[in-house]
Amino acid sequence: MSSTVRIALDVMGGDHGPDVVLPGAEIALVRHPDIRYLLFGDEARIRPLLAAHPRLAQASQIIHTDVVVRMDDKPSQALRHGRRVSSMWKAIDAVRLHEADCAVSAGNTGALMAMAKVNLKTMAGIDRPAIACLWPTMCGESVVLDVGASIGASGQHLVDMAVMGAAMARIVFDIERPTVGLLNVGVEEIKGVEEVKEAGTALRESGHPGLAYHGFVEGDDIGRGTVDVVVTEGFSGNIALKTAEGTAKQVADYLRAAINRSLLAKIGYLLARGAFNALREKLDPRKSNGGVFLGLNGVVIKSHGGTDAEGFASAVDIGYDMVRYQLLSRIAAGMNDRPRVGARAGAAASASAELQVSS
Amino acid sequence: MSSTVRIALDVMGGDHGPDVVLPGAEIALVRHPDIRYLLFGDEARIRPLLAAHPRLAQASQIIHTDVVVRMDDKPSQALRHGRRVSSMWKAIDAVRLHEADCAVSAGNTGALMAMAKVNLKTMAGIDRPAIACLWPTMCGESVVLDVGASIGASGQHLVDMAVMGAAMARIVFDIERPTVGLLNVGVEEIKGVEEVKEAGTALRESGHPGLAYHGFVEGDDIGRGTVDVVVTEGFSGNIALKTAEGTAKQVADYLRAAINRSLLAKIGYLLARGAFNALREKLDPRKSNGGVFLGLNGVVIKSHGGTDAEGFASAVDIGYDMVRYQLLSRIAAGMNDRPRVGARAGAAASASAELQVSS
Repeated sequence: MSSTVRIALDVMGGDHGPDVVLPGAEIALVRHPDIRYLLFGDEARIRPLLAAHPRLAQASQIIHTDVVVRMDDKPSQALRHGRRVSSMWKAIDAVRLHEADCAVSAGNTGALMAMAKVNLKTMAGIDRPAIACLWPTMCGESVVLDVGASIGASGQHLVDMAVMGAAMARIVFDIERPTVGLLNVGVEEIKGVEEVKEAGTALRESGHPGLAYHGFVEGDDIGRGTVDVVVTEGFSGNIALKTAEGTAKQVADYLRAAINRSLLAKIGYLLARGAFNALREKLDPRKSNGGVFLGLNGVVIKSHGGTDAEGFASAVDIGYDMVRYQLLSRIAAGMNDRPRVGARAGAAASASAELQVSS
Repeated sequence: MSSTVRIALDVMGGDHGPDVVLPGAEIALVRHPDIRYLLFGDEARIRPLLAAHPRLAQASQIIHTDVVVRMDDKPSQALRHGRRVSSMWKAIDAVRLHEADCAVSAGNTGALMAMAKVNLKTMAGIDRPAIACLWPTMCGESVVLDVGASIGASGQHLVDMAVMGAAMARIVFDIERPTVGLLNVGVEEIKGVEEVKEAGTALRESGHPGLAYHGFVEGDDIGRGTVDVVVTEGFSGNIALKTAEGTAKQVADYLRAAINRSLLAKIGYLLARGAFNALREKLDPRKSNGGVFLGLNGVVIKSHGGTDAEGFASAVDIGYDMVRYQLLSRIAAGMNDRPRVGARAGAAASASAELQVSS
């Protein structure tokens, strides 16, 4: 590990491109002066912006690229026209070439994941990567994965995600053995999809030095902060994440509407402004911005496409931490003694694979 | 249809049994004086409570039962010791025998669904029942299903749920062609599980006089109220529901904590109390209590087990509406011209079935 943390930025990614990425990069740089940036993108657009950010300019090197992956490109399209030449690809490629320690992009998730998989490949023993996010809870934050890398998961993939998520949680929360729960449904009749049950059995019986297995958790346990790490397959994980975001916004909107309906309430609002600001800060999606791609031979961070500079800076921050506290070697170490799901896992995995083929 | 609506109550169901069910039944009776109740449960406990509710007593008939399905019974246990003899079974049985128009229970979901399936059977052409709930949104409410009857769904089952959910939405919202969306994930790479795509194609191409197909929706569209009916399979639906409940509670708790931190905020709270009360009412889970079992030869409503009398009354209300506005014949009519998923559906359905076998 070098004494600096070298971060490759896809400057053209996201809804606002350089106008958000560069100011965001500067905010993160102030917090972590040991960052050095590789800026991949249109030099003609980056140069003038850097002139306005001399501090950032000093810590950065521009690598000009002509091609931009669009926010609505399908992964296949992105690979076809952006492979080897786009700012997104080149940022990831810098990680593969060990010219950067991690890559951060606000570009489209599907394209970013496809390019990261093709270019970096999955780590030894890991079938599929996952996307982990930080989820604000009643007691702080939890790591939740997979929030959308792939649909369906065998028992072993769920176990692997538990190990990877715990490695990330050890860094983020600075605890030795994070608690891990498997997301499940609470209706007795159907409790325990077979894959989830298998993963639970393996985690309980084999144990793992890097995590404390808690058991099954339900949807409302996520926000309650019942466990440090919540593991689920990508379809339900993505829906849970979007549903929670929507609900938080909905409640805030209700409150705003209710307050605007009366003068007395407006006065009360002014008096309680400090509390409302605290609430707003707590719910600020920018603070937990940054999806971490787990299971690849390199650190790649996905920022929300529509975020602002503050939000992008959070994504850079999390990339910085993952590098500084050695996410990859922690995952590799964890995988060495990962629990294995039993003989029955084979059957479930092949049924799941078959479903994948048809989809 | 008789001029009264005859409702069978599992008086022993739920965390509080008769102490909540009977006062709840009375609240609903005041709103709908044309209800007549069949009360299934322990006569020795019901009689004295009825004495305190003369109005309810007049509209009710007690049928004594000795056996109670416990909240933690597994469906198989419930069937073993509660079949033919429990208050839950007998309430459902009254529907089968046409002695009641619907059954309402706050007992455990898995047992209730198992007994309802065994006793009432699914409607012609429907493979599996679903549980639909009313979900509070920015614009009112939406019908969301399946929130936990079964895991996984073939394209055809998703289409059938669209038809059933629309039938329910026509009653609840009094609109001729409710809009219907299929819940999906927004990550480009994996957008469109095959089953969801097939269902979307069938709904778009065949059309249906009873619904307006909107397309795919994501998790945050549910609370936004983008469509009147949101269709998904039971695992992700249950997780979305629990996650939203957890998030709403979480935001309310944040707000409470923030207000309690300063005197000024507390004074502001007092002034804005009307607005907070409006918010509380809007978020009141009791008002949208009542899961509707769809696809069975009879109307069965599941109330939350931990709700109070007001909440139980909401579950009775929705049962009343489903009977009064003829849910079953609307579903049957809708199924006659339901869209059929194409030839490829067979392959996906069999892969999905295989997954079921292993789970």
